[in-house]
Amino acid sequence: MDEITFAVLGTGGIGRRTLEVSTEKEGLTPVAACDRHGVAIDHGGLDVDELLAATEGNIASDPEDRVSTDGGGAAAAGVKQTGEDAGVVASAQAEPTETPIDDVIAESEAIDAVLVALPNFEHDFIPRVVDRFAEADYSGTVIDVLKRSRVIDMLDDRADALEAAGMTVVCGAGATPGFLTGAAALAAQSFVEIESVDIWWGVGLKSGYEDNRGTVREDIAHLPDYDIEDAREMSEAEIEAVIDEHDGVIEFEDMEHADDVLLERAGICDAEDVTVGGILDLTADEKPTTTTVSVTGRTFDGETGTNTFQLDDDTSMEANVNGPALGYMKAGVRRNRAGEYGVFGPGELMPGF
Amino acid sequence: MDEITFAVLGTGGIGRRTLEVSTEKEGLTPVAACDRHGVAIDHGGLDVDELLAATEGNIASDPEDRVSTDGGGAAAAGVKQTGEDAGVVASAQAEPTETPIDDVIAESEAIDAVLVALPNFEHDFIPRVVDRFAEADYSGTVIDVLKRSRVIDMLDDRADALEAAGMTVVCGAGATPGFLTGAAALAAQSFVEIESVDIWWGVGLKSGYEDNRGTVREDIAHLPDYDIEDAREMSEAEIEAVIDEHDGVIEFEDMEHADDVLLERAGICDAEDVTVGGILDLTADEKPTTTTVSVTGRTFDGETGTNTFQLDDDTSMEANVNGPALGYMKAGVRRNRAGEYGVFGPGELMPGF
Repeated sequence: MDEITFAVLGTGGIGRRTLEVSTEKEGLTPVAACDRHGVAIDHGGLDVDELLAATEGNIASDPEDRVSTDGGGAAAAGVKQTGEDAGVVASAQAEPTETPIDDVIAESEAIDAVLVALPNFEHDFIPRVVDRFAEADYSGTVIDVLKRSRVIDMLDDRADALEAAGMTVVCGAGATPGFLTGAAALAAQSFVEIESVDIWWGVGLKSGYEDNRGTVREDIAHLPDYDIEDAREMSEAEIEAVIDEHDGVIEFEDMEHADDVLLERAGICDAEDVTVGGILDLTADEKPTTTTVSVTGRTFDGETGTNTFQLDDDTSMEANVNGPALGYMKAGVRRNRAGEYGVFGPGELMPGF
Repeated sequence: MDEITFAVLGTGGIGRRTLEVSTEKEGLTPVAACDRHGVAIDHGGLDVDELLAATEGNIASDPEDRVSTDGGGAAAAGVKQTGEDAGVVASAQAEPTETPIDDVIAESEAIDAVLVALPNFEHDFIPRVVDRFAEADYSGTVIDVLKRSRVIDMLDDRADALEAAGMTVVCGAGATPGFLTGAAALAAQSFVEIESVDIWWGVGLKSGYEDNRGTVREDIAHLPDYDIEDAREMSEAEIEAVIDEHDGVIEFEDMEHADDVLLERAGICDAEDVTVGGILDLTADEKPTTTTVSVTGRTFDGETGTNTFQLDDDTSMEANVNGPALGYMKAGVRRNRAGEYGVFGPGELMPGF
């Protein structure tokens, strides 16, 4: 495969780890990264080590930043944790900006792919980001790691604009949906009819919690008594209180996760046949349960069986989000270069069902 | 996905089951089928039920046919088991022919994909079939279910001719290589470096044995004391003797299976890091062992783990060959229609590594 240049929007846990993983992958050159306060662009390739070191523990993406823009003092390491200099601008490669996404768009002719690694607090946030690229006639690939079923339809509404611009959007391309959606699509190949897809995940996130507050906040929105607006408006203290209430181990059942609509659009099963649940343990790094995809179906010769895909407990959430995100990015760019535009879910980048 | 018309070359176990499975899949219309003695073509769609019923237990593809062309009497069901009328010509839709593949080529402008379901006794047999389509400027997709590592290179040697014709070849697209190769490629996504891929299969083939003699014969070629030429030349009695020697349960270790080169060409690992083995039980339909793909690798954050993919013991070999073969056919046709020509392995039709 030819070389791929890419940008990362958002340098929270996912964006930072995507940059890090990309340094171990062939054919990928990160050329831009931004957060809400700054942007780093180098078409020759960002110095990922410098960027990660300079911004370690320094993420300008959570709601506390929005309410405490007091320009507060520098943190111990000389990096501002909050205020105007928080986030990616702590890197020598970055400049402060009021318009980070526009700055990336301005340089996007030389950028093959854009990975959107921003928590999707407003339902239409990622669709609106996609709109801005389409309006600028960006003719590359956009990957997101969104989790909400209802957002897929919003992207589909933009199919004509994407086609006109020559854009390929791969949505829901993290761990779940993403990696596990693809696994379900593949596991389905034994069968001619799918009865059920069960996706069950375990995440242990003790040491990675600080780096993944956005992800945890978004997960809380999946609890029965909360929605995405609640989660977005909650203070850090309120989030902590929910975590404490569950003694740091939160079990999710029947989550609204985009795996369902992504498998339906790939023609594999009805959205209602898909269930997603899991356990998030913030008290330990060990996974509280083994991440497993179970696909039950009927074979052409009349048997019923369940194929399974399991991730080793020692593979972290970060490994299982970022490897697949980059893998789907490569697949998306390939489609884009072949002239296939529009919206693709992970299941559509697998063998057909 | 748009409608796909396809031909099947070979109406032994695999070809027949491919036709059968396709009737339960959306968007697939079988329009041609042939064996060594006959060809059935109907661009409106073959009547698969009639073709399968007429030819049940009647396969003109094994060596015994070649040596006993005595025009012998009709079998109990009125279907000739051997001789000039053996095989697909027993179907009302078929005509006898001396040139079955040429007959399909003559009609290939209206055929989107060709599935080669012939045991690959001569190493260069499938490459030579591909040559014939390329020489005729066939601009569609060819899928094969070959198993031998060395054949992949032969196909690669034809890359220029395929590009010129506008042909897309998906090779090794059955169960293993094929389904399990794709599973290994996907399971690798947690990792930045792969240490080993272990593919272990179980097949129980008591009731399906008659229908799968070609497959069993080809498997025997993988035993330490045999090669593909031996297996091709052996009489049915000699094959039976090998089976009896193993009490009907044959274990294979470190087979020359194309999974290794197919994973290497997808950039996932070195061919030598891939091992393939399994157990073939001809005394029972239950699988003697659970088919499992284990991919061990190192994550970007320094952990080592093993992801696994397991097929339910109740999914038959036939289900696991033919579903994926048709799935890869759909993927190959999509690539072909987008203008991507040349040779693809299953791993290259998955997210990039």
